[in-house]
Amino acid sequence: MVKRPAHRPWKVLSSEYLSHEPWYTVRRERVELPSGAVVPNWYIFEFPDWVNVIARTAEGSYVMISQYRHALGETHYELVAGCCDDGENPLEAAQRELMEETGYGGGQWRLLMVTSPNPTNHTNHSYTFVAEGVVRQQEQHAEESEDIDIHLMQEEELRTLLVDDRIVQALHAAPLWKYFATK
Amino acid sequence: MVKRPAHRPWKVLSSEYLSHEPWYTVRRERVELPSGAVVPNWYIFEFPDWVNVIARTAEGSYVMISQYRHALGETHYELVAGCCDDGENPLEAAQRELMEETGYGGGQWRLLMVTSPNPTNHTNHSYTFVAEGVVRQQEQHAEESEDIDIHLMQEEELRTLLVDDRIVQALHAAPLWKYFATK
Repeated sequence: MVKRPAHRPWKVLSSEYLSHEPWYTVRRERVELPSGAVVPNWYIFEFPDWVNVIARTAEGSYVMISQYRHALGETHYELVAGCCDDGENPLEAAQRELMEETGYGGGQWRLLMVTSPNPTNHTNHSYTFVAEGVVRQQEQHAEESEDIDIHLMQEEELRTLLVDDRIVQALHAAPLWKYFATK
Repeated sequence: MVKRPAHRPWKVLSSEYLSHEPWYTVRRERVELPSGAVVPNWYIFEFPDWVNVIARTAEGSYVMISQYRHALGETHYELVAGCCDDGENPLEAAQRELMEETGYGGGQWRLLMVTSPNPTNHTNHSYTFVAEGVVRQQEQHAEESEDIDIHLMQEEELRTLLVDDRIVQALHAAPLWKYFATK
């Protein structure tokens, strides 16, 4: 048991929303540290919780996707991932996203990892589930802004991608490493 | 060798900066997908590259830190981390951050991992170095907005934190899992 580190929260002196759009909800806060130092502008990005899935078919293939990611201007292999909609818990969101993006469903699901995209400036968490024994149940039903390829991948291929940093998104690489280390 | 996934970039129809502050440089783009679908508002957060360090003393202890993280309102154990300053390469930034935040330096350094905070909306990468055999050379010289505790941790303690998701930031958890898996 490793004891908790000392916790010295900051005082919020003022707080205002700069924007309230989907994928762009931003608060600016003036904060005071325990030392008395004041930081005039601390930017906080509010997002709903995110989810992703390590999905495996009954035959042992991993259900991966790839899609163009605009901020980086690159396309890489990824886990199926998405956001919790209003009123949805992380498991429901992950099951919905897997079905929408790949048409796979069913199987046995468990929570593997809860992580933070960035505790400095993101308010949300990312939940990773493992789904074993998923089955193709329908066609892909992606959103208009999604252009997703589905890849059934063998374990050795996925491990090779991971070792070579070709699963570039940290929110996907972290749970994949944890999965293989604790499997 | 796993082949590259198909790459279908989007066309940028228009692009404007909404803000140009440190930690808050944002572009809004109107983009067109290969399907012809148009997304009117895609938000892109520009950041410099980030770095972090898995630092180990000659005696085998890991040099970890903890600090309050305002967006999440929590304090967790972390790797030493920071940003590349102008003109600095990732190795130089990581060595400077380790010295500033903990006073440790020297040792043998190697690049372990390059990852993306979020290829959807972040332009930058995060570089993780392993530094073996670091030595305490001076006092901590943190910035005014930093309030950092230093922890020398044994390997079993660090592994326990990792298994329990108590290294919450994905950009730190991913390289730590990779480090222990490939060490």
